[in-house]
Amino acid sequence: MSEITNRFATGAPQNLEERFASRAAHMKPSEIRSLFAVASRPEIVSLAGGMPNLSAFPMSMMADVVQKLVLTNGAEALQYGSGQGHPKLREQICEVMALEGIRANPDDVLVTTGSQQALDLISRIFIDPGDVVLAEAPSYVGALGTFHQYEASVIHVETDNDGLVPQGLRDAIKSVRAAGRKIKFLYMIPNYQNPSGVLLPAERRTEILNICREAGIFVVEDNPYGLLGFDKPSPNAMRAEDSENVIYLGTFSKTIAPGLRVGWALVPPSLKEKLVIASESSILCPSNFAQLTISSYLAEQPWRDQIASFCDLYKTRRDAMLESLDEYFPTTAKWTKPGGGFYVWVSLPPEIDTTALMPKAIVAKVAYVPGTAFYADGFGSWSLRLSYCYPTPERIRVGVKALGEVIKTEMLRRGSNQLS
Amino acid sequence: MSEITNRFATGAPQNLEERFASRAAHMKPSEIRSLFAVASRPEIVSLAGGMPNLSAFPMSMMADVVQKLVLTNGAEALQYGSGQGHPKLREQICEVMALEGIRANPDDVLVTTGSQQALDLISRIFIDPGDVVLAEAPSYVGALGTFHQYEASVIHVETDNDGLVPQGLRDAIKSVRAAGRKIKFLYMIPNYQNPSGVLLPAERRTEILNICREAGIFVVEDNPYGLLGFDKPSPNAMRAEDSENVIYLGTFSKTIAPGLRVGWALVPPSLKEKLVIASESSILCPSNFAQLTISSYLAEQPWRDQIASFCDLYKTRRDAMLESLDEYFPTTAKWTKPGGGFYVWVSLPPEIDTTALMPKAIVAKVAYVPGTAFYADGFGSWSLRLSYCYPTPERIRVGVKALGEVIKTEMLRRGSNQLS
Repeated sequence: MSEITNRFATGAPQNLEERFASRAAHMKPSEIRSLFAVASRPEIVSLAGGMPNLSAFPMSMMADVVQKLVLTNGAEALQYGSGQGHPKLREQICEVMALEGIRANPDDVLVTTGSQQALDLISRIFIDPGDVVLAEAPSYVGALGTFHQYEASVIHVETDNDGLVPQGLRDAIKSVRAAGRKIKFLYMIPNYQNPSGVLLPAERRTEILNICREAGIFVVEDNPYGLLGFDKPSPNAMRAEDSENVIYLGTFSKTIAPGLRVGWALVPPSLKEKLVIASESSILCPSNFAQLTISSYLAEQPWRDQIASFCDLYKTRRDAMLESLDEYFPTTAKWTKPGGGFYVWVSLPPEIDTTALMPKAIVAKVAYVPGTAFYADGFGSWSLRLSYCYPTPERIRVGVKALGEVIKTEMLRRGSNQLS
Repeated sequence: MSEITNRFATGAPQNLEERFASRAAHMKPSEIRSLFAVASRPEIVSLAGGMPNLSAFPMSMMADVVQKLVLTNGAEALQYGSGQGHPKLREQICEVMALEGIRANPDDVLVTTGSQQALDLISRIFIDPGDVVLAEAPSYVGALGTFHQYEASVIHVETDNDGLVPQGLRDAIKSVRAAGRKIKFLYMIPNYQNPSGVLLPAERRTEILNICREAGIFVVEDNPYGLLGFDKPSPNAMRAEDSENVIYLGTFSKTIAPGLRVGWALVPPSLKEKLVIASESSILCPSNFAQLTISSYLAEQPWRDQIASFCDLYKTRRDAMLESLDEYFPTTAKWTKPGGGFYVWVSLPPEIDTTALMPKAIVAKVAYVPGTAFYADGFGSWSLRLSYCYPTPERIRVGVKALGEVIKTEMLRRGSNQLS
């Protein structure tokens, strides 16, 4: 009683909720979080996560790289470093980007703690509550989560089997602006998109760049999978064509290893200073230890050959998945045929709710990500994402077969319900 | 011309500034940034930075630790991990905190990319623009920068040679609330504070905890230096006394090495979920590679002995600095006598502007951080922070002597000006 009186007297808040910032209302666990906990059990074939497959990674070589680094350059590797990132690694990052046609200055590269941090920093400098971010339909769940925390409205833009549809983009810009709202940027993954696996052709890249430049909208080009094309190199990065209006995000998570948490942003010079200051406020500086490990690896090891090995590994798994989808999925289901990357996007008949179906899939010992996770607006209920990156081809076949049976059973049940 | 017409027609923004979020107005380079670039030249004795001294760190041992880690557990160390942090490291963090009297559950620990990320996440869940954060006067520049980016108003609370003054805290709470403003938390560094070097005695800790609990204000206890006491152990952490109202921040940057970028927050259970979600949105997960390196080091190496070696090293440097301050600084200057940590805080006669003096110090080949950097309100113009952590004792003496001469010359010049 006396404490309560006291709190009134001092103007103290009455409950925890009113002590949080308003943006904290957006920090709620997602539906799929608990599913993921279940999906990671060993008896489940997880076609859910996007974990790179490190079975082809030469661990003994990497062990030697890090040992030598600490022995010969430990005082630097274990010390604080530059907020923008290590100068040598920024040069090497430019060499990596050159493989996709990008000519860049290391001064315009900001090293980040995975490309997720780059998404966070871009959101931080651009998004006021209520601002609009345009994104492919569907789009990467981790990016949507970050935009949401910064209280953006994500408006999805139409896609087809060739990725973002330029006319859909024009229409979206027009209707958003007609409603008096500010568009801050277009977020997209042109290569082997997450979750759809599709590739944006070169001519669409040019058209989309022109639309955005003319409309004064930055393009955020997120490119984790560009070097993981199976049959032919992917088209040049969009950033190769436009250095002023494209914010390019790269990462070593899929070409080397994600546990190092090293990604980067290549940004127009006009944005660099704010992004560096935002990053320093966020983490002070990226890890020299991780950065110099990658720098040594790139300098000393045949990293291009290693990426080629990863491509072989993922191609075999992609083939196993597409073959077993053909064999075990109902004919009314449609799916994409990725030429690279990690994912296949499956569309079922619209009466199937893939979120509701998940517990039945888990019982059948297979997991996936329900389609609604990849939309900001609740769409996608009859879609799902399958990842082929991590399990063995044999496990992929077992998982796809089990899921096909779950779906067929559900369709039958739905069909009988309709009859009854 | 046609492009301009076009932009009007599409409602595109006219210039870059209007494309940024409003918070980006706070992302401007600080005055001291350019000074730091100069201070890092080898001919300058830098008493400015707070870089830990790794000369006593056994690099060959660390090289073996990381080599073995990658060889025996590379598939985990190089993979994505838990957003909250690796479970084993969270257990070990609890053992480290036990040295300062904290009993904690690993479930309540969030591993972060240095404790700077913890400051960022706490700001993110609590601070709406205009909210008040209370902080010691002076306070850590990196924390002030983060609070500023989240558009908080920092109100400084009176300190003396025993740290934060409880009555000053009562007064500050009263006057801020009388003005109708919300206080979100009190940020403080009770052990060998940055920048002042002072230690908060046990009885004040209890009193401050009581004040904050009663007022419904969280205490953010930032403790990078608690294990770096030179003569006697520091008092128990404030968190040891209050698990419900204290958010505790720790780091391995000063007890192991900063280049790994591993820190943590130990938080009241009611805050954990939001902080984990905020962290996932910010970086997806902390680096398994860095976390497991630290975990192996803690499990396999005599880390307590290593901390004792660091203490010896810093104590020698502290002594060199205090002795040379006695010898070379004017008698009208006052400074703190730290019992641990990295810093001495110097107060000069109020007519000396330490920011204006910096270029003269650089000419005399010595650098420091001007006092205003540690205040949100422009105060501190006649103070400065000296770090003794990094240079050798000989270099410290050279630097303090040079700075003493610069200050004495300036006082003389000022004196003559006043006479003229």
